[in-house]
Amino acid sequence: MSSAAATVNGVDLAAVGGLAQQLLAEPDAPKSSWSARTQWTGAFTSASYAREHGPIVSDEPTLLAGSNSAPNPVEYVLAALGSCLAVGYAASAAARGIELRALEIELAGTIDLRVFLGLAEGHAGYDRIELTTRVDSDADDAALQELHEHVVKTSPVGNTIEHPVELRTRLVKS
Amino acid sequence: MSSAAATVNGVDLAAVGGLAQQLLAEPDAPKSSWSARTQWTGAFTSASYAREHGPIVSDEPTLLAGSNSAPNPVEYVLAALGSCLAVGYAASAAARGIELRALEIELAGTIDLRVFLGLAEGHAGYDRIELTTRVDSDADDAALQELHEHVVKTSPVGNTIEHPVELRTRLVKS
Repeated sequence: MSSAAATVNGVDLAAVGGLAQQLLAEPDAPKSSWSARTQWTGAFTSASYAREHGPIVSDEPTLLAGSNSAPNPVEYVLAALGSCLAVGYAASAAARGIELRALEIELAGTIDLRVFLGLAEGHAGYDRIELTTRVDSDADDAALQELHEHVVKTSPVGNTIEHPVELRTRLVKS
Repeated sequence: MSSAAATVNGVDLAAVGGLAQQLLAEPDAPKSSWSARTQWTGAFTSASYAREHGPIVSDEPTLLAGSNSAPNPVEYVLAALGSCLAVGYAASAAARGIELRALEIELAGTIDLRVFLGLAEGHAGYDRIELTTRVDSDADDAALQELHEHVVKTSPVGNTIEHPVELRTRLVKS
């Protein structure tokens, strides 16, 4: 098999297959660990880092008393979900031999700022996120719908948002 | 009051107060709407946009068959949470007259890649996120602990992660 044939949607099928084989061969291997650190940089701005990557700069819009220098945290949640689904579509389509020409995801949700500002009780986060995926592919509708449902169901970011996740927090005075 | 006195932690107290007054004056005003769009850019890379901001570039590490050109989606979730908490500390400390000299948040969690890859059943997202906030401030321990608990409780990203959130998804062939 040529190296071109081993790539679908730009995804290296041998590398993904090797990862799956490795995980199957080591059922007791630890889960995959991820971390980030966020440095507050004054007012509503911050710079976050993950491994050798960053800064991931965040700010609030001027309407929320920020300086609008970057996306805000709740927009990063939508971007994280969109980028996670994009990985899922690319990988799962490749595994099914489905070629994608283009794929875009639009995501939206609402936040009750009153709860954030302590003016009302309730849930200060998104209560629902709506998203539309637009895909350009020759695959038939049923195959694409099955792909879509599989990708949403197995998305790490999607599952983090859909399920209750425990936050264990600690404050240290430095 | 001088303009310097109206700023604590770089936060414009008049602007935050004005926002709160506006929300109190319009109890039937709609919730605040946020959106993003993600464009798949081949393999495991994507570029996301929110309002005039972006691209927010994402990729997977080479160990996960990506090209490691950017943070990955689950790292963006941690960064979103860290940056959201940073806004919360700055705003709520300012409202309490607490001056922060420095603040950093370390965040970590684990993902079961077997579930993502379809090799096992279960929850493909974070099941728990642990975070430590390091704060440099002259405020006393009790005041800082109260601040910390309030910020975690009212964080929009924290609440999105902690609570079950409905994902409404739709696939459109373009």
